[in-house]
Order: sequence, then C-alpha cells, then structure tokens
Amino acid sequence: MSHNSNYIINNSSTSNKTTWIAVDWGTSRLRVWHMNKEGDILDHRSCEQGMNNLQPSDFEDVLLTQIAPWLSSNSTTKVLACGMLGSRQGWMEVSYVTAPCPAATQSMQVTTQDPRIEVHICPGIKQLSPADVMRGEETQVAGFIASQPNFSGIICLPGTHAKWVLVDNAQVTHFQTFLTGELYALLAQQSVLRHSIDTHQWDDQCFSKALKQSIDEPQSISAKLFSLRAQALLNNLHTGSANAALSGYLIGLELASSKQLWKGRQVVIIGESTLAKRYSQALTLCEVSSSQQDSEKLTLQGLALAYHQLSFSS
Amino acid sequence: MSHNSNYIINNSSTSNKTTWIAVDWGTSRLRVWHMNKEGDILDHRSCEQGMNNLQPSDFEDVLLTQIAPWLSSNSTTKVLACGMLGSRQGWMEVSYVTAPCPAATQSMQVTTQDPRIEVHICPGIKQLSPADVMRGEETQVAGFIASQPNFSGIICLPGTHAKWVLVDNAQVTHFQTFLTGELYALLAQQSVLRHSIDTHQWDDQCFSKALKQSIDEPQSISAKLFSLRAQALLNNLHTGSANAALSGYLIGLELASSKQLWKGRQVVIIGESTLAKRYSQALTLCEVSSSQQDSEKLTLQGLALAYHQLSFSS
Repeated sequence: MSHNSNYIINNSSTSNKTTWIAVDWGTSRLRVWHMNKEGDILDHRSCEQGMNNLQPSDFEDVLLTQIAPWLSSNSTTKVLACGMLGSRQGWMEVSYVTAPCPAATQSMQVTTQDPRIEVHICPGIKQLSPADVMRGEETQVAGFIASQPNFSGIICLPGTHAKWVLVDNAQVTHFQTFLTGELYALLAQQSVLRHSIDTHQWDDQCFSKALKQSIDEPQSISAKLFSLRAQALLNNLHTGSANAALSGYLIGLELASSKQLWKGRQVVIIGESTLAKRYSQALTLCEVSSSQQDSEKLTLQGLALAYHQLSFSS
Repeated sequence: MSHNSNYIINNSSTSNKTTWIAVDWGTSRLRVWHMNKEGDILDHRSCEQGMNNLQPSDFEDVLLTQIAPWLSSNSTTKVLACGMLGSRQGWMEVSYVTAPCPAATQSMQVTTQDPRIEVHICPGIKQLSPADVMRGEETQVAGFIASQPNFSGIICLPGTHAKWVLVDNAQVTHFQTFLTGELYALLAQQSVLRHSIDTHQWDDQCFSKALKQSIDEPQSISAKLFSLRAQALLNNLHTGSANAALSGYLIGLELASSKQLWKGRQVVIIGESTLAKRYSQALTLCEVSSSQQDSEKLTLQGLALAYHQLSFSS
C-alpha cells in the first residue's frame, strides 16, 4: 500500500461525507484512489494485476480486493475507471467516441454483482483518418483541460505508445500515436543491440547527436541502428552511449514526423518520468519550450470530471 | 540428411580423388557440403546447431558428427568455413579485413584435435566509417565476383540484417547494413501488432502502397506502424494486409535510405527466398531492375575460392 502523502487528509474528518473511487486500469497495472467530493485523495493502492491476464469475470473480484476497506455495507460507492479495461480484451468493451470531440466524455456503467459498488468506465477516443485510438490518455487530457479551460495547443504523452494530441476550444481535434516506446523496449532488450546496450546507463551528448541525426535523416534509422552494434564491436562504444543513441534515434524519428504539430508552439508534456524529461530535453534541442504536467494528478482530475458529470446527470 | 540432387555425382567415381569440405556456420544453423576439387557437390548435410548455443570447445565435435562419413583415417581433409563461427562468440575470433578490400580474403586456420581435418575460417569485412561489419556475406559476394569478374555495381543481400554492398574492380568498396529483417520479426511477433498480423498471409496491393508511402515519408514509420493496429481495431484490417503493409513500410524505409546506392543501377539480389522476391518486387516499383542469384551456389563458389587460394599458397 503506497500513500501520496501530499494529498492525504484525515479519514475521520470525512467519514460522514460521500466518497468515490478513481481507477486507472491499464494493461499491466491497476491503480485505485479513494477520493472525496472535493477531489482530495483519502487513500491510494496499486497492484500488478493489469488487464492483460484477466478474464471479464475476474475484474470485479480483483477490484473489490483492492477497494474493500473503503466500502460501506449500507451504501453504494461510485467507481470511475479509465484505461484499457474498456477495451475488447478488458472488463467490458466501451465504444470509442470519435474525434473531434471533448476529451471528457460520458462514461458507461458496467454490470456488477456487489451492491456496494457502481462502476462506470470512460470510453476511449478514435480518429478515423489517419486511423488512431487512445484509451486512458483522453482522461489525462480532460484533466488538463479542466485546469486550463482556455488552452489551445499541443499535448505530448510519452510512453509505450507515445501520443500527440491537438486541443482546440476544449476539443480533441486531432491526434497521432507513435510506437516509439515499444520499439525502444524491443530493440534494447530483444534485438542484436541488447549485447551492446545498458538501459541503466546514459550519455547526454550521444542522445543529442543521435536525435539531431534522426531529425535530419529519418530514413536512415534502420542503418543507424545496426551501426550501433558495429560501433560496439569495432570501437567499443560504451553501453550507456549506445542506450542514449538508441533513445535519441527513436525520439528523433518521432519528432521528425510530428514536426507540424510542435513547430513554433509550446508543448505540454504529460508525465514526470525520465522518459518525459528526455522529450523535454529533445524539444529544447529543437528550440521548442515545453512544460511537464503531473500525470497522476491529471488522471484524477479527469476521473473527477467524469464523477461530477455522472452526479449531475443522475 | 538432405541432398541437392542437381549437383550430386557418384561417390565411387571420385573416391580416389582429393575432396574438401565447405561449411557455412551461422547463428542458428550449420550447413556442410562434401566437395570435389572441381567444385561439384558430392554430398550435403545441415542441422540446427548454430553457433548461438555452442562453447568454443564444442565446435570440433559438432562438426565431426556431421562430416565423419566423408573423412578418411589416413589423410587430412581441408575444411573451409564462413559465417558467424569466426566471431567473438564463435569457434575462434578471426579479425575482420577492412574495406575497401577484395571480397575473397585469406582464411585463418583454427587449431583442431582430430588429425583427419584441417579447418580454415574466412574472415569477415569491417568498414570504419560509417561503422559496419559482415561475416558470411563476403563469401557470397566473393563467389559472385568469381563468376562475373568484370562486375561493378551494387549487390543486395536481404535477411535479418540486410546488406547493400558496392563492388568496384573486384573490391568491396562500401557497404551498409539495415536492421530490416530483425525489425520485421520483432514487430510481427512480439509487439502490439502481433494481434493484427498473420505472417503467412499476404496482400500485394498493401505491400506496394506501404512501400511507396514509406519511401515518400520515411519519417512517419513509427506512426504508420501504430496505425496498422488502429486500422485492425477500427476497420477490421485483414491480417494479411497488415503483414504486407508492415513488410512494405520496413523495406520502403531501407530503400529510402539506400537510394543513392541503387538509383539508376541494376541491382544484383543474392537470395531466392520469398523475402528476396519482395526486394525484387519493391525495386521494380521503384523502376529499378534486378536479378536474383542463388545464395547457396555463391557461398560454395566463395568457399571454393578460399580452398584454391589455400592450395595455391601452401
């Protein structure tokens, strides 16, 4: 059980008030928060039971194991969930909303057995052309828009499948997903490059150089990748330098392709991970300024929006 | 034991003549041929004991298991080998020769216990800038040059690590390796795309379209890859179409980068696999003609050169 102490307030002071539960259920991880109506975190738990290895009939029990201490036997607690649990392989498939659309969209209730909970899942967003999808990120974007209602511009969400989301007048107008994070993991851990890379080592100069090369000559990426192996064999290239170069080539390829989205703008990066910092560093090298936003805070703000929308509509 | 019946000649007719053994020992496979001095195949065997899981002390025994029937107890048979067995993780590390250099280079003898064999390993070729290496392909290139001594031009060797080799005046003057085949395998089998791809299905039209898109906009590859997943989810993209598109994007990226090597030339493709046919098809779409060469035949011609060079120098 982990606490985010900045947000915790005394349970006793809220014990008589209505509370609700926020859930972010991804492919490999489940995170739950006990929330009050004002959006404060009363408690927080997480576990590794992502949706990847669950059958639809498993979800309710897994959820109850995590949130049972927060439930009351004589009332129903609303649960607002986002993420891959709404996909075809998840708890219940919730149809995508089609962009352009508001980031915060109407959640859908899933049938549950336990009378103490009422579970609602936020839909993802799809784009028809070019074909693209998101599930989970829309809730973070909705949380960001809630905090800056007049925002128009570009939001970058680094990760396994990095997303660039164009927002105008509180609508998601366009977005694009890149396989960057997954390519990095496959190449660093499973390709011939794994012999030459240490993912725990880093080299800023190699990152910058590779990034610029990739932006200037994106077509050369698959030759550049093999050359890392050759440099390791011939020149004893440092494993941290190879790691940074791999990251630089792949983020550079993404920036070369997304240029029309970020050029001349300030970019909002959602995330505070090392990876998010590298995106910020990469954009600085492209003379573009960026700001980083706390992704957990935005997820909770987005789920709070969905909760209040529910309370308002019911 | 597999035979290539086109080449087999009667053992009895050659039993009194000197024979030698050709070996291609790669990462995942060992192939051996019993040869006469004229370059005819007397017999052929192969097994899955590639160098990947062997210790240096294992190689001699593994080789002997395959070639024992061809050895004589009262003479020494020369064995000429190429491939990854000459790498640091192989039987014995044989230093690379530095390009520009002849494709056929001086082999190096490895110490063996059994007096019936004398084993020589062909070195690979390295290039200092941009850093690049090959082990095995140089022998095929040498075999090709032996059959066409006046050839000047570009040779393409599709595979896990596809190579483009520029030959001038019987020298390897420049080469470049692309991770194309390995990227394809990782993406088709291990990434999120594995749910949307059937590697046994194909769609020519999707291949051509993806190839052209990738040549025109190589920077967009990582977005295009995710879009295959989205098209599968949203438009039920056929798994064979997704497979062909993945192949088209990756070969297109390679062609975009190697353009200066093949533009305005006729390309020699070494290989007769399905993959080699796709390279030929891709080049045709770029209005470049190509011819396909039998890779086994060239390997044997290259090893025969090394054998004769040895006989000549000793």
